Amino acid sequence: MTESKSFLVVGGGAVGSIFAWRLQEGGSNVALICRSNYQTVLDNGFKIKSHQFGTATFNPNKVYTSAAQASAQGQKYDYILICTKSLPNRYNPADVLDGLDVADSTIVLIQNGIGIEDPFYKKFPNAAIISSITYIDTKQVESGVIEHGISADLSYGLYDPENRISSKHTADQILNSLHHCLVQGKINSKINHNIQTERWYKLCWNASFNPISVVAGASNTVQLLSDPKMHALIATTMREIISVGEAYVGMPLSDKLPSDQIPESYISFTKMRPDPVYPSMMVDFINKRPMEHQVILKNPIDIAKSLNIKVPTLEFIYTFVSFLENKHLQ
Amino acid sequence: MTESKSFLVVGGGAVGSIFAWRLQEGGSNVALICRSNYQTVLDNGFKIKSHQFGTATFNPNKVYTSAAQASAQGQKYDYILICTKSLPNRYNPADVLDGLDVADSTIVLIQNGIGIEDPFYKKFPNAAIISSITYIDTKQVESGVIEHGISADLSYGLYDPENRISSKHTADQILNSLHHCLVQGKINSKINHNIQTERWYKLCWNASFNPISVVAGASNTVQLLSDPKMHALIATTMREIISVGEAYVGMPLSDKLPSDQIPESYISFTKMRPDPVYPSMMVDFINKRPMEHQVILKNPIDIAKSLNIKVPTLEFIYTFVSFLENKHLQ
Repeated sequence: MTESKSFLVVGGGAVGSIFAWRLQEGGSNVALICRSNYQTVLDNGFKIKSHQFGTATFNPNKVYTSAAQASAQGQKYDYILICTKSLPNRYNPADVLDGLDVADSTIVLIQNGIGIEDPFYKKFPNAAIISSITYIDTKQVESGVIEHGISADLSYGLYDPENRISSKHTADQILNSLHHCLVQGKINSKINHNIQTERWYKLCWNASFNPISVVAGASNTVQLLSDPKMHALIATTMREIISVGEAYVGMPLSDKLPSDQIPESYISFTKMRPDPVYPSMMVDFINKRPMEHQVILKNPIDIAKSLNIKVPTLEFIYTFVSFLENKHLQ
Repeated sequence: MTESKSFLVVGGGAVGSIFAWRLQEGGSNVALICRSNYQTVLDNGFKIKSHQFGTATFNPNKVYTSAAQASAQGQKYDYILICTKSLPNRYNPADVLDGLDVADSTIVLIQNGIGIEDPFYKKFPNAAIISSITYIDTKQVESGVIEHGISADLSYGLYDPENRISSKHTADQILNSLHHCLVQGKINSKINHNIQTERWYKLCWNASFNPISVVAGASNTVQLLSDPKMHALIATTMREIISVGEAYVGMPLSDKLPSDQIPESYISFTKMRPDPVYPSMMVDFINKRPMEHQVILKNPIDIAKSLNIKVPTLEFIYTFVSFLENKHLQ
């Protein structure tokens, strides 16, 4: 477990840059694919101010503009971290790896929502897929300048519904080796064999606060929760997610909290935060960028339909969010 | 029926000015209470361009700024037409008549929504109350300048749940005399003893297109109906109104159309209009004016609750409309 691993991080935004930085600090070799901030990062690296890890300039071992460029010398990577938004309604998210040989790689998806693994699993039958959830407070305040708070957690497990990886030994090795690299970089790393359950648990927040903040005229969490009717609507939305999620994964979403207490627990936690939260979907909306409503809302709605569970609130919200996006992007 | 009747019209906007004008043209004596356009109307009258009735300058017999002023010489009125928005969540709508002796008057409410009569019925036990619905395409394009289309209809009936007017003769006289004055002014006048049924029928449009246009980012009817999901949501909203309305009035909302065909009929009719419709609530929203969500949404929701009928779509829309209004008016 002491050999150095090679990482390719796709997406040099607020999330990708922190993981890339921590992995490099932990001793891994880290290449990074950037889009809008490519030239800035190539010239000056990232300027990172982190409450947890201190201030630093981070220069990736390599900076590329595309996967094709990242594989130019036949380069292969042990782990490929996908730190982009998942927008399957606009293009195939797995196309981001076009031009790269991923046959022996493990693709680690650091994305929110449900069904994000499917495009990668279909397109790359010879790669291992890890599904992960991050809890991290980070933002890119200007091109190449990252402000990070006090958390950088990654929970993850294998995604392999067809049991392509038949050997438990191989599976464990893939997970443990990633864990080792993350821990070396001081990431709070947690292997979770019920990662889908955790995805749905996190979705409670993402499928409620995120799109509701958009439909409510780009309002932050403090504004939303100051209205008792909106508070109730957020809780109703979470309850719908919980009912679908628990039917889908076949177990309670939390082992610490009874399911009916999850909504108020999430809401209290959100209320206690010192500053209002501007959900990422709302920030995308304000900046007229596409929103992740397919994996946050539409895929869960489709699963609900397949399970014959009514989710009227999710459908309302999805109708308005997708309508508003169309209007913005036209 | 040939004696001249005296009218006081409260609200010199697009609706009030047309009714006042037509009544005066029909031979009635018409005083008008204006707010923002008072000075303009006092100095120059209304400039009216009507497809149906032609072009004219309309000078009311009297122009006032308040009911108190309108009763300064002890003046009384046979009919008082209320042509203002109904905003019981902001103030008592009946307060608009403060200072006026209405004991022998008939108050004609030309307003949309449900429960608009209640504040007047409670405050003025000695006045007769007429509940009416207008179908009129008119707008005030600038202060005192009115553009009117090809319809000016009024349907109405007595509002008297406590049977205060015990004599059928008196009731008929009140209605017939108003009918006569309106017909003289070429208004398409229709006495409807089931006026509450017609209110709910019209509410199908008002409770759907109006608030949905607001929540959908101030979108007009063409924009809304170009999205199949939004089309479906509008129909669902109408179906909820129909189910509550029919349970409440105890009869079908239409005698021409099966109830389940009302939504698509309304939607087709809206689609066929030559120009997009900018619903009045959306225009109020854009101009940061209070919206009539209490009588259009909240009162119907409360009635649904009292009848144990589920109206999740109405509640959802009401939550967002009232939230967005609070945000705008803060």
